[in-house]
Amino acid sequence: MKLQHVIQSQQFSVPNLMELFGRTRQMEKIVQRGGTRDYDGKIMATLFYRPSTRTRFSFESAMYRLGGRVLSTESAKAFSSAIEGEQLEDTIRIIADYCDVIVLRHNEEGGAKRAAAVSPIPIINAGDGAGGQHPTQALLDLYTIYNECNTLDGLSVALIGALDTGRTVRSLAYLLSKFDRVKLYFLAPPELQISQDIISHLQERDVWFHLASDPDEVLAHVDVVYQTRIDRERLQSKDVSMSNYDINPAMLRKMKSDAIIMHPLPRSVEIDPAVDRDARAAYFRQSRNGLFVRMALLTMLFEAE
Amino acid sequence: MKLQHVIQSQQFSVPNLMELFGRTRQMEKIVQRGGTRDYDGKIMATLFYRPSTRTRFSFESAMYRLGGRVLSTESAKAFSSAIEGEQLEDTIRIIADYCDVIVLRHNEEGGAKRAAAVSPIPIINAGDGAGGQHPTQALLDLYTIYNECNTLDGLSVALIGALDTGRTVRSLAYLLSKFDRVKLYFLAPPELQISQDIISHLQERDVWFHLASDPDEVLAHVDVVYQTRIDRERLQSKDVSMSNYDINPAMLRKMKSDAIIMHPLPRSVEIDPAVDRDARAAYFRQSRNGLFVRMALLTMLFEAE
Amino acid sequence: MKLQHVIQSQQFSVPNLMELFGRTRQMEKIVQRGGTRDYDGKIMATLFYRPSTRTRFSFESAMYRLGGRVLSTESAKAFSSAIEGEQLEDTIRIIADYCDVIVLRHNEEGGAKRAAAVSPIPIINAGDGAGGQHPTQALLDLYTIYNECNTLDGLSVALIGALDTGRTVRSLAYLLSKFDRVKLYFLAPPELQISQDIISHLQERDVWFHLASDPDEVLAHVDVVYQTRIDRERLQSKDVSMSNYDINPAMLRKMKSDAIIMHPLPRSVEIDPAVDRDARAAYFRQSRNGLFVRMALLTMLFEAE
Repeated sequence: MKLQHVIQSQQFSVPNLMELFGRTRQMEKIVQRGGTRDYDGKIMATLFYRPSTRTRFSFESAMYRLGGRVLSTESAKAFSSAIEGEQLEDTIRIIADYCDVIVLRHNEEGGAKRAAAVSPIPIINAGDGAGGQHPTQALLDLYTIYNECNTLDGLSVALIGALDTGRTVRSLAYLLSKFDRVKLYFLAPPELQISQDIISHLQERDVWFHLASDPDEVLAHVDVVYQTRIDRERLQSKDVSMSNYDINPAMLRKMKSDAIIMHPLPRSVEIDPAVDRDARAAYFRQSRNGLFVRMALLTMLFEAE
Repeated sequence: MKLQHVIQSQQFSVPNLMELFGRTRQMEKIVQRGGTRDYDGKIMATLFYRPSTRTRFSFESAMYRLGGRVLSTESAKAFSSAIEGEQLEDTIRIIADYCDVIVLRHNEEGGAKRAAAVSPIPIINAGDGAGGQHPTQALLDLYTIYNECNTLDGLSVALIGALDTGRTVRSLAYLLSKFDRVKLYFLAPPELQISQDIISHLQERDVWFHLASDPDEVLAHVDVVYQTRIDRERLQSKDVSMSNYDINPAMLRKMKSDAIIMHPLPRSVEIDPAVDRDARAAYFRQSRNGLFVRMALLTMLFEAE
Repeated sequence: MKLQHVIQSQQFSVPNLMELFGRTRQMEKIVQRGGTRDYDGKIMATLFYRPSTRTRFSFESAMYRLGGRVLSTESAKAFSSAIEGEQLEDTIRIIADYCDVIVLRHNEEGGAKRAAAVSPIPIINAGDGAGGQHPTQALLDLYTIYNECNTLDGLSVALIGALDTGRTVRSLAYLLSKFDRVKLYFLAPPELQISQDIISHLQERDVWFHLASDPDEVLAHVDVVYQTRIDRERLQSKDVSMSNYDINPAMLRKMKSDAIIMHPLPRSVEIDPAVDRDARAAYFRQSRNGLFVRMALLTMLFEAE
């Protein structure tokens, strides 16, 4: 696959995903051997209009493990009235002269696409606005399921949380719908259920799905439990409690013995730290996979040049 | 030339400038070949009391393309009450032990000179206060004219904008005055015209110049159109409009076919994006030249050690 | 010594300190030769919840002089509501996958210990809260005395300032108490004298000490004058002046000709810049030693892996 930019998860076909995941496994081995110097001389810029230390470090570490260098902004927007006033397109054209790839976290939906339209070098979207995309998160989520379950076909996956607005869950549902015999359980209070556009998409593709609000209907049947972040303020404003969806030792006893528990992190109360000791807790391995997926994407972008 | 610090554009004689520009051209070739590792082991600190992502990235990329490493502050002043309370001189003496060159953007006029007075390692002034200097901008502006026009003698240059306060325009007028048969057109509303100190300087050196407020008097005659940033708040407070100085396709038709258009960027409305497609639009090439000029300066500072 | 984490100065025995200081001297030579590439491929993360440009640069320069790379935060707390809401333990577990050592400046006392309890990679405490520890400062202070006086036994040391809250002075008093025939003079206004827990510790270990409020009682007798930072707001709220403790040329005349003057920097009025020219002024050499001590600690942590 010739990879020019990484803008949205939908751009990856199933063969593309398999190529990416094969390469991701190689990256894990390269890191175990202490990284490579193959991309010495390459420069990556992390242009973050909204700060995110974990995502930024994951990209920067990926570049370092490949032997490259990093130009970094912790919070471009807070710190540059100039950049704020200027057009994103101009900023990208200028910064593209200083580096070989730009990782962009922009504050407006569609920012990454606008950047890619003018950039002579690859753009990686690291999140663009609340309603936007964060494709490397979706890819590392999918890779984690693939790596933990050794397949993506025939899996039953429960997606839990405020599903109506959850970006990670929406992207993951979309990606999983590309695989055979996948079963999706959407587990949420009725007022926070997955939105109609995803349901329509699944119906069009003939994907099995089930909407549930009771964990007991779901947990015993699934291979993957994907829990998501709670936005307390929003829940309070809607007068909804989600405490009966929290993953705790009692919930663990209801799951399959070989199921895995995922979460995009950081977590709040929605996963009890007592769960961490259980082998099914895959969320730290999931986070670690972000490093390998990002390394794999960088190598594909550099090779396509 | 033995270069110890880069504090103000006036420190460069014509032979110094020619040596710098020769080296700058070499740097462009080095970057095309993927950079060098010659300065592996060297450390540059970017100590920015006022944030400027583009200027900082340009310096840091220059250091990386030379093989060096970077200690970076995005906004030293916002983040260190300690540094704010302490004397700049002490900060410089301390940080000089951690690196091989300091790029300083200070918030007070004369900050770079004070730093150089106590520093055992080279200081590069990346801007010191509103009324201060930003010599690498002036040098990259001059280099761009040299590189685009293949000479600096006998050129006609229009400088446009709020010329009374414009730092870049003042520095460039000063540098251009060193070359033979240069003609300078200062194009601005009367209340924002170039200040008397520059006029006196040009008269002393017998440099041809003309003050104009009508673009039609100027545009057909010049080889270089140097447009500058608009400070809307200041214009509003003075009740002046500068919209008839904006560069747009209609203005383009009045210019020579081999003229170039420059701007220090970022721009606002003062250059219409429709102009970007015209071959005469040199402002992105100008920005890119900043990388090569800064690389050339760094190598000269390291060699003089 | 197998060094797993650097959390508090008390963890170092006298033989450990001597091993560290021997290695620190080697690091000074390595820096003079332009650094090493031995730790190429290693990544250090500086996770600073509270900004400190000087401390961060000192660690990052140490890592660069060893050939390594750096993931950097200027102000993690200001910039990541996510990280603020999440447990420190989760953050550490996540970031540990991106690097080989974490330098943590946390805003809560005990933060570094909590981090070390869950971290699979070494943690270096770069300060944890007002009442917490900053062990690398204490180690570089002790190394400076050792390096300047060629011994740590039999020295007379004056500690000056608001001693009741001074973290650096408390840690240094603790470390000095491990050496033979040390004499400690605590010089402060009575209301700011050293607290009872340190006095009890010294009494238990049979260390000679003297509490004084008059500089004339102390200055002629000591080998080391350790001056500390003044917190003006606190002094004003307590209605105490410390101006008669300021080190100035008049005070210099009262000191031994081979005494040294130390200060953790940055300073305010408590050391007159006129003192800088005196050979006894050791505070800039002390700051520089921080680089070598931190390099030595990093190599010990990497070797213990």
